Amino acid sequence: MQYREERDTMGVVMVPADKYWGAQTQRSILNFPIGPAASMPKEIIHAFGYLKKAAALTNQELGVLPQEKAELIARVADEIIEGKLDDQFPLVIWQTGSGTQSNMNVNEVISNRAHVLAGNKLGERKPAIHPNDDVNKSQSSNDTFPTAMHIAAYKTVVTHLIPAVRTLRDTLARKSAEMMDVVKIGRTHWMDATPLTLGQEFSGYVAQLDHGLKALENTLPHLSELALGGTAVGTGLNTPKGYADKVAAKIAELTGFPFVSAANKFEALAAHDAIVESHGAIKRIAVSLMKIANDIRVLASGPRSGIGEIRIPENEPGSSIMPGKVNPTQVEALTMVCVQVMGNDTTITIAGSNGHFELNVFKPVIISAFLQSACLLGDACLAFNDHCAVGIEPDHPRIKEHLKNSLMLVTALNTHIGYENAAKIAKKAHAENTTLKEAALALGLLTEAEFDKWVDPSKMTGLY
Amino acid sequence: MQYREERDTMGVVMVPADKYWGAQTQRSILNFPIGPAASMPKEIIHAFGYLKKAAALTNQELGVLPQEKAELIARVADEIIEGKLDDQFPLVIWQTGSGTQSNMNVNEVISNRAHVLAGNKLGERKPAIHPNDDVNKSQSSNDTFPTAMHIAAYKTVVTHLIPAVRTLRDTLARKSAEMMDVVKIGRTHWMDATPLTLGQEFSGYVAQLDHGLKALENTLPHLSELALGGTAVGTGLNTPKGYADKVAAKIAELTGFPFVSAANKFEALAAHDAIVESHGAIKRIAVSLMKIANDIRVLASGPRSGIGEIRIPENEPGSSIMPGKVNPTQVEALTMVCVQVMGNDTTITIAGSNGHFELNVFKPVIISAFLQSACLLGDACLAFNDHCAVGIEPDHPRIKEHLKNSLMLVTALNTHIGYENAAKIAKKAHAENTTLKEAALALGLLTEAEFDKWVDPSKMTGLY
Amino acid sequence: MQYREERDTMGVVMVPADKYWGAQTQRSILNFPIGPAASMPKEIIHAFGYLKKAAALTNQELGVLPQEKAELIARVADEIIEGKLDDQFPLVIWQTGSGTQSNMNVNEVISNRAHVLAGNKLGERKPAIHPNDDVNKSQSSNDTFPTAMHIAAYKTVVTHLIPAVRTLRDTLARKSAEMMDVVKIGRTHWMDATPLTLGQEFSGYVAQLDHGLKALENTLPHLSELALGGTAVGTGLNTPKGYADKVAAKIAELTGFPFVSAANKFEALAAHDAIVESHGAIKRIAVSLMKIANDIRVLASGPRSGIGEIRIPENEPGSSIMPGKVNPTQVEALTMVCVQVMGNDTTITIAGSNGHFELNVFKPVIISAFLQSACLLGDACLAFNDHCAVGIEPDHPRIKEHLKNSLMLVTALNTHIGYENAAKIAKKAHAENTTLKEAALALGLLTEAEFDKWVDPSKMTGLY
Amino acid sequence: MQYREERDTMGVVMVPADKYWGAQTQRSILNFPIGPAASMPKEIIHAFGYLKKAAALTNQELGVLPQEKAELIARVADEIIEGKLDDQFPLVIWQTGSGTQSNMNVNEVISNRAHVLAGNKLGERKPAIHPNDDVNKSQSSNDTFPTAMHIAAYKTVVTHLIPAVRTLRDTLARKSAEMMDVVKIGRTHWMDATPLTLGQEFSGYVAQLDHGLKALENTLPHLSELALGGTAVGTGLNTPKGYADKVAAKIAELTGFPFVSAANKFEALAAHDAIVESHGAIKRIAVSLMKIANDIRVLASGPRSGIGEIRIPENEPGSSIMPGKVNPTQVEALTMVCVQVMGNDTTITIAGSNGHFELNVFKPVIISAFLQSACLLGDACLAFNDHCAVGIEPDHPRIKEHLKNSLMLVTALNTHIGYENAAKIAKKAHAENTTLKEAALALGLLTEAEFDKWVDPSKMTGLY
Repeated sequence: MQYREERDTMGVVMVPADKYWGAQTQRSILNFPIGPAASMPKEIIHAFGYLKKAAALTNQELGVLPQEKAELIARVADEIIEGKLDDQFPLVIWQTGSGTQSNMNVNEVISNRAHVLAGNKLGERKPAIHPNDDVNKSQSSNDTFPTAMHIAAYKTVVTHLIPAVRTLRDTLARKSAEMMDVVKIGRTHWMDATPLTLGQEFSGYVAQLDHGLKALENTLPHLSELALGGTAVGTGLNTPKGYADKVAAKIAELTGFPFVSAANKFEALAAHDAIVESHGAIKRIAVSLMKIANDIRVLASGPRSGIGEIRIPENEPGSSIMPGKVNPTQVEALTMVCVQVMGNDTTITIAGSNGHFELNVFKPVIISAFLQSACLLGDACLAFNDHCAVGIEPDHPRIKEHLKNSLMLVTALNTHIGYENAAKIAKKAHAENTTLKEAALALGLLTEAEFDKWVDPSKMTGLY
Repeated sequence: MQYREERDTMGVVMVPADKYWGAQTQRSILNFPIGPAASMPKEIIHAFGYLKKAAALTNQELGVLPQEKAELIARVADEIIEGKLDDQFPLVIWQTGSGTQSNMNVNEVISNRAHVLAGNKLGERKPAIHPNDDVNKSQSSNDTFPTAMHIAAYKTVVTHLIPAVRTLRDTLARKSAEMMDVVKIGRTHWMDATPLTLGQEFSGYVAQLDHGLKALENTLPHLSELALGGTAVGTGLNTPKGYADKVAAKIAELTGFPFVSAANKFEALAAHDAIVESHGAIKRIAVSLMKIANDIRVLASGPRSGIGEIRIPENEPGSSIMPGKVNPTQVEALTMVCVQVMGNDTTITIAGSNGHFELNVFKPVIISAFLQSACLLGDACLAFNDHCAVGIEPDHPRIKEHLKNSLMLVTALNTHIGYENAAKIAKKAHAENTTLKEAALALGLLTEAEFDKWVDPSKMTGLY
Repeated sequence: MQYREERDTMGVVMVPADKYWGAQTQRSILNFPIGPAASMPKEIIHAFGYLKKAAALTNQELGVLPQEKAELIARVADEIIEGKLDDQFPLVIWQTGSGTQSNMNVNEVISNRAHVLAGNKLGERKPAIHPNDDVNKSQSSNDTFPTAMHIAAYKTVVTHLIPAVRTLRDTLARKSAEMMDVVKIGRTHWMDATPLTLGQEFSGYVAQLDHGLKALENTLPHLSELALGGTAVGTGLNTPKGYADKVAAKIAELTGFPFVSAANKFEALAAHDAIVESHGAIKRIAVSLMKIANDIRVLASGPRSGIGEIRIPENEPGSSIMPGKVNPTQVEALTMVCVQVMGNDTTITIAGSNGHFELNVFKPVIISAFLQSACLLGDACLAFNDHCAVGIEPDHPRIKEHLKNSLMLVTALNTHIGYENAAKIAKKAHAENTTLKEAALALGLLTEAEFDKWVDPSKMTGLY
Repeated sequence: MQYREERDTMGVVMVPADKYWGAQTQRSILNFPIGPAASMPKEIIHAFGYLKKAAALTNQELGVLPQEKAELIARVADEIIEGKLDDQFPLVIWQTGSGTQSNMNVNEVISNRAHVLAGNKLGERKPAIHPNDDVNKSQSSNDTFPTAMHIAAYKTVVTHLIPAVRTLRDTLARKSAEMMDVVKIGRTHWMDATPLTLGQEFSGYVAQLDHGLKALENTLPHLSELALGGTAVGTGLNTPKGYADKVAAKIAELTGFPFVSAANKFEALAAHDAIVESHGAIKRIAVSLMKIANDIRVLASGPRSGIGEIRIPENEPGSSIMPGKVNPTQVEALTMVCVQVMGNDTTITIAGSNGHFELNVFKPVIISAFLQSACLLGDACLAFNDHCAVGIEPDHPRIKEHLKNSLMLVTALNTHIGYENAAKIAKKAHAENTTLKEAALALGLLTEAEFDKWVDPSKMTGLY
């Protein structure tokens, strides 16, 4: 490989000749050989694109950066946003906890790429655009990295996770409506209980996701607060007057999201409570999805010796040894994602609690765990929706068989003959393996006509 | 001990003669010798008092319970609410996962106590009030226990936790205002950074708690939804028309909190996402408090060989061997509570994800963990407030010494001489152990007048 | 209440006149009103009894404490060990993170009680035994509290948790042996799979617990290391020569457990990795028990519309509304305990990672979470054993019905006709709702005699 | 892209013409677009290489697979082990929870690649080697995937993680020895305490890692147990006699690790307690490293206004805005990895507890989290070792300044003048901001000669 000399305040470093990054990026590559290369999420890099463009334009408007420089920076920032420079960001999550090295990676790439765009040769001294004095102007890693975190997190939640959960929610709502009249046995404690309809059962799933989406949306205002303008410790040192609000408005304009400047910059640098909070809501949705997916898995179990009250799409051979086996694989992928999200919540909780003084230095692990959760859960909801939920159908014969066997229909008699008498009927039927009606009549507690009138599974659902 | 016979649908059980509980409570005592006795939180028992009273009055209003019965039930319920019958609830958390046995404990105590209040003798057959047919009328454990969970959780959050956090928040806000002009060194990565004021530092803590309180309040609407009226599986079987809304309104009236009937009862029984969600917000506050308390602990470290920029109250001898030692013990209690809350969040997350079909049967562990978090965190905030936060004072000499030593004041020069020149000054001063000014002048990068004008810690805080 | 004056290095405090504790205990009561009173586990108090007795006797043997004093201390220590002074320890978990206040509580109670045993009156100045100079001689809270933690943890694990898990393991092993010939359908992915026997299925549970017990026992050597002798920071300041080894040997003698002096006292004070490690193993057992209990719950589901392949004891009425309902309540208690243990592991992990320099100051929360896990899990195993596991019985008709329906018996044909042909049979039988044999013969892939010979569920278990 | 037809028991699928994988792999690509492509860890793929080779050779030896087929399979397996076919494994973690699709991916690649190696053309019907009947012979996904999990986990732990931790441990031990005579102030509760030496402080870190390595090694025997031979549900259906032990021995031979056949195959398929257990030990090491790294970070804090008792290497510019700033970045990377490991432990705990009946279907998430922890923690230890630990040096002037200021040296007087008198001295010195000696002499409690003799920091370390 060819190398060229790059330099920072610590001295000279050899950098691959064809790369735009500079000395500090290369130092990070050498000092942090931890895990797969380039693991810093691309969402963060792209968010930095918006940020650097907004900062440059705002600096120009406030008179602290010449127009040519601002325009050059903006041009490269656009390339970053469009993903054209993705291969210029080789750094890993497991670097400095402030993300400084990724901020410098962006600064260096913009500086060098702008130098080339301005008609110069890569590696020449005195770049047209200085990575610190120009690209990073009115900024610190300490306010840019958390700003990029919020941009990336907000965008991923709003454009990916929420729509994906909503897609699944809508499918389940449609299924609930379609199956609203399918009366079936209820189950509590894994034991036979009083009846409800499949549609009612699914309406609970819909309600869970509705509440979950509401909870997640409740966290968006805090997530929309940007640290930018706080610079090194939150005081806004080295920023022109009016910068913080203006640059937040610029980011809002560029991204189309309602970002605002954080009311308190000290909080915005030293804590990542907004991320902790939003991820808490994502984890809460994962808790809901775990329940929903487990139910669907068990309802579809069988095909012959399980519960088998619904059928789900058969997508692939399920076994390398058992011919003809089909498994609820979409449930499995989704539930695996859910436990990953739960684990990520522990990661983010611990990392979030470990800030000190003016900075939390667990930023990269916090945002990587957050984005993993948001991306995976969104993806898994869509896959589960498309390859499982849309194809859910009731197995009517099975449902009817389970329903008619149920001893818990006896509950309808409570208000007529009292709980204790009703219990006698159920116990007798259970012990003697008869129907409820047979037991009821044998005990002489009511007439057949009364039984038929009072014990009506459809009416017990409350729908009719 | 004297015993009397009690009976349920499974037969006879011997019960301590002087206790109001019945057969099912006693069975639970015998079957679940797990952990300390009577560990089911009293908040749940008292919540059941409100619930049973509201149900009885609603049943009466809807014509399914005679007035005498309703009044008797309400009288005992009032005794329960007032804590007069606390010793009648011997059951543990680690019982059936639906809390059925605690519901029956309440039903049995009300039945027997009402029997006595009605002038009869405990233990006589045919109680005036039947535990199932009367006390539990229009109810199931499956909707009463989650209703009691929400009543207890909501009440504890609103009357204890939120006010306690707010008390601490207000003290920190006052401290922030008082110390707004105390310029001090900032610290990022545990390393000296640019200055800010103690008041600014504390303003970050206030912002953390403000956001945390907002996040917790956002979860209250879901927590205000009551499952009551869903009965066994959510369908409302065996309830009179209009019951669910009416009984929720009655509970709201009795408690003074804005409870409403859950829009979807299937969700309200089968999931505890509302609790998961609210506890997620409590955990998020614990994350904030961990950061705040750790900062205060370190800022107060010393007395001679630590950071020592603030002084906190000396409350007790700190060591059994080191005479005169004083420790930040309130910080320690608070941070221990914070990690307990974080652990409880894992408990609640896992338990919340393990519902199946029409019921989640991890109810007691979910609510006990929730209430422990809410009670302990409230208590710890108050203790920390009263015995630590209110007495925080700056140590001015120490603060000044640290500030004047700082090399990072050099940052103010960036916009004048550029980042690279500024770095040269800082590095020279560090290497040669001189002041910044000495290094700056030695390098000839600026004049003394310029240095004194540009490097002004007070101005660097952005406040002046 | 009557009060008397007590005094420490900070001054005078009023203490209830009839209590043995002194000024520092009372300060702690006043400063830490957090959660229920006296929550510091009694196991810790009793462990301190062993410790103080061992220290006194060792101090005497090494010539730094007069015999009369040592004997007096030992007498009170015996009372503590026997639980006679339990009401003298009013402090809570949420105090100083070193547990200093509980160590001083013990020192003060011993001092005052010894004063009385020596024939004096409580509250008189100049106690016969000084709480610091005598009772705490050659000790610091920093080495005594972790020593008490290890004594309490080791004892609870060895005398309670391990025997309880082993009791359940033995019952499951007996059940496995009894049901070794009960051929049943296997299930993977919740779908019908190839057969095995109920005894084989249960043998997996036994293997899980065997491995779990082994894992827990592997952690005992580290848990048997005692910090005592390290005093304030691990250097052993103020201890006589030979003290550490001798006092550990004395504790071993008094308790009957193989305690040794920690090889490195700095580690023993500053970290609680031994507790983290042992609790990790307890959590791992909880993971096993969660799986086992869930299986048993589902296998017992029904009674009519579930899986229903085993029957478990009917211990109590399961529902306040559904007459005759019986639930797997012991499973529910056990699984709730398991999730509590998992949450406690998060608590202990975070607390364990938060030590600084010479001391971890999350000691009380660490040991309280540990002891809760060990006690509850032991209790729950015994309850589950006695009230559920011992009564497990196969439901033969149900098992046979499920087995004969299974399409996955087709797997036995792989080695005879190949996976693809076998799949054709299974798919045809599934699609046309026929038996495997009917489908096999219809496809002409083998003769009836071959089918009957090759597809033999008993042989497929590998047992015959 | 060019495609060819591939076929499984469900029908035809179009597959990229130049890829070796078949129909089932392609179905998985289409059905599981969740997260980045090809996320299934390569360690698992390579482990499958060993497994398939061992199975083929064992099948041949036991007479159920012709030699030519076995040799062809072994040739491709070798290519897989060497990483030559890495681009043939496009599947993700978030697929079926049994990993069946990755097992089939391996089977299909071996089948097609062998077909080509045998001189045929890719895509021709009737491959020389059938993916199920030959490559998968005597196997099921249900026993191969857990076997690959154990091979990959064991290998990563033994060849990467343990040596990496040991490297760091050895460096810390060397530093401990080098700095054994550097007397410094101790700190407990973040407050000044009695002295020890830097070497003693570091010896605690060494002891932590020694215990941690022991704990991890304790888990290796369970991890060395292989599920292979259990096939579909643990019974060993469709395996030749003697297969399980023989194939485990073959894997041991091929890998050089002491693998054995699992004593109980039901446990080995249905639970992943071995992984839960080993990861618990890894998490426990992360807890230790968190403490160690935090200490080093704080000890190195400053450079002027922190603790500053050690110096660590300056590796890169620390700030994009603060010139000359240098940060403890290796500590930050390591501690971020530690919290990731803690979160992964939650993931693995929950996933491990969610097995049902004969199979745990959270296998891919369990092993991916495990391998991430083992790889990252090993990498981070090495980076931390090379770029931080090896360069740690004491800052003698700072250490001496802190030591001489300490009031806690007074503790040495306890045994001479009693705790209460010693406290008077410390309090007086603190209040009046004098030295201990000045206060001691002013109080007349001892002579200057006595003070100088008794208060000797070096002697207080217990080393001299």
